[in-house]
Amino acid sequence: MPLVDHLVVVGVGLIGGSLARVLREKGAVCRVTGVGRGVGNLERAVQLGVIDCYVTDPADAVVDADLVFLATPVCSIVPILARIAPFLKRGAVVTDGGSVKEEIVREGERVTPAGCHFIGGHPIAGTEHSGVEASFSTLFCGRRCILTPTPRTDPDAFQLVSRIWEIAGSEVVCMEPATHDRVVAAISHLPHMAAYALVNAVGSMDTGGENVLRYSAGGFRDFTRIASSDPEMWRDIALQNRDAILGMMDMFTSRFLELRTLIERGDREGMEAFFRLSKGMRDTLVLTAPSSCLTHSEGS
Amino acid sequence: MPLVDHLVVVGVGLIGGSLARVLREKGAVCRVTGVGRGVGNLERAVQLGVIDCYVTDPADAVVDADLVFLATPVCSIVPILARIAPFLKRGAVVTDGGSVKEEIVREGERVTPAGCHFIGGHPIAGTEHSGVEASFSTLFCGRRCILTPTPRTDPDAFQLVSRIWEIAGSEVVCMEPATHDRVVAAISHLPHMAAYALVNAVGSMDTGGENVLRYSAGGFRDFTRIASSDPEMWRDIALQNRDAILGMMDMFTSRFLELRTLIERGDREGMEAFFRLSKGMRDTLVLTAPSSCLTHSEGS
Repeated sequence: MPLVDHLVVVGVGLIGGSLARVLREKGAVCRVTGVGRGVGNLERAVQLGVIDCYVTDPADAVVDADLVFLATPVCSIVPILARIAPFLKRGAVVTDGGSVKEEIVREGERVTPAGCHFIGGHPIAGTEHSGVEASFSTLFCGRRCILTPTPRTDPDAFQLVSRIWEIAGSEVVCMEPATHDRVVAAISHLPHMAAYALVNAVGSMDTGGENVLRYSAGGFRDFTRIASSDPEMWRDIALQNRDAILGMMDMFTSRFLELRTLIERGDREGMEAFFRLSKGMRDTLVLTAPSSCLTHSEGS
Repeated sequence: MPLVDHLVVVGVGLIGGSLARVLREKGAVCRVTGVGRGVGNLERAVQLGVIDCYVTDPADAVVDADLVFLATPVCSIVPILARIAPFLKRGAVVTDGGSVKEEIVREGERVTPAGCHFIGGHPIAGTEHSGVEASFSTLFCGRRCILTPTPRTDPDAFQLVSRIWEIAGSEVVCMEPATHDRVVAAISHLPHMAAYALVNAVGSMDTGGENVLRYSAGGFRDFTRIASSDPEMWRDIALQNRDAILGMMDMFTSRFLELRTLIERGDREGMEAFFRLSKGMRDTLVLTAPSSCLTHSEGS
């Protein structure tokens, strides 16, 4: 018997589309309703077999939903929650895929009516592409999904959401919402800010008409791949996780300027020690990475 | 008939070993002598069929060399040139693979005796691995190789070195040594400094004993891959290309702090415009990238 009778996915893009795909493939859901603003994307999602049908107002979709997955840009999650809350049926479980958690979980628990449940979630997966066309059923396979239960969380609702992500192939990790936000500021938001600034600096370099970027090879391309991510999405993340991102940016700036001083002074030992420390940390990271069943890289 | 009778490779690592491999595979050289300090690595290079024999003093190797390829760390190139110069036979051509060119070309032309020729070169290829074990014959395939001829450069010697890199599968691009140094500071040296600082900042974050790096997935791993590069090599590059690197680091810092201000102010339009500009530059880069016949990425 499927785990979920009626799944509603609000935001049928890379993340929402990929979760719908894998849950259908595994027989974990009976039917999937998509919700979004762009009818073209929703029609494409029906054609691709990602969803069964769609509506444009989330309130219409959730009346008989057992599980609602909010996969919109982070700034839309709280407003959508407020919109759907009065229409949820008793026992409905709502979860999200937003990459910032503290504010969403606080508001989610505040607006969700008694008898319904909100569980904050964040699959650590993605690519630099977006839209339902970019979705694929193995996106979450071998990745981690962070869930952020609180003392108010209903154990059965938590179990359901955990199972969903395990079926998608992810390892579920629990974390407090605020800890989550600091961790992702470090491992995801900071690298994105650095990549955006780096491409900006190199691309706008004055070289007398010569396009420096044309000499860049794989290293630069790999390093800056995440600067191709969706600008609106990153604007919203930067708005929602402002303080943690600023904290990490300052930590980075201080290390970067420390390295600058070593280079300016021509400090051989200092530079080598700096590089060696980073290399050691990076090499350890590769050794301890979770096993993955696909080669797609994440960008969120 | 092979293009080169006797090739001497000083520094039989990733770059030197890969060039020797491809030139042998293509029948472009009759014999290859390796030179290095580590006898273990040289013996391994003989076992792997990368070189025919080896010596540890470069002066011994070059007496009947037609082409000498200096593939050592950048700081060793000028001292080795000075050491071998008196022993070069008339007509010998010396080139290098150093990723900094201005000082090397100036000194190379100064110490190379009359009748012999020095051509500065820099293959834009590499991986984060080092040593002859990491070398492979397709490393340069589909990559660019920058040569830095000067008004003093002998046309025949330049032709020979160009042919060598074309045989290795590279597109040869010419540039003035100083221009080269600014270009690589932008597209290679700056990203390495940013990656080293980023891993350092994230890895040393105080999280009450929790290792934040364990939550990082593909995006962070891709972004920081180059922080696994050889610390000694990067120390030497930072010493040799100090001014261009400092200039690029300052340009990056100014963009990064500009972005920080936008985030701090919660400037929606400003952030989105910043991200959009970077994404546009990055997306153009991918479209204009040279075709490649392998998937290995470069790190130098």
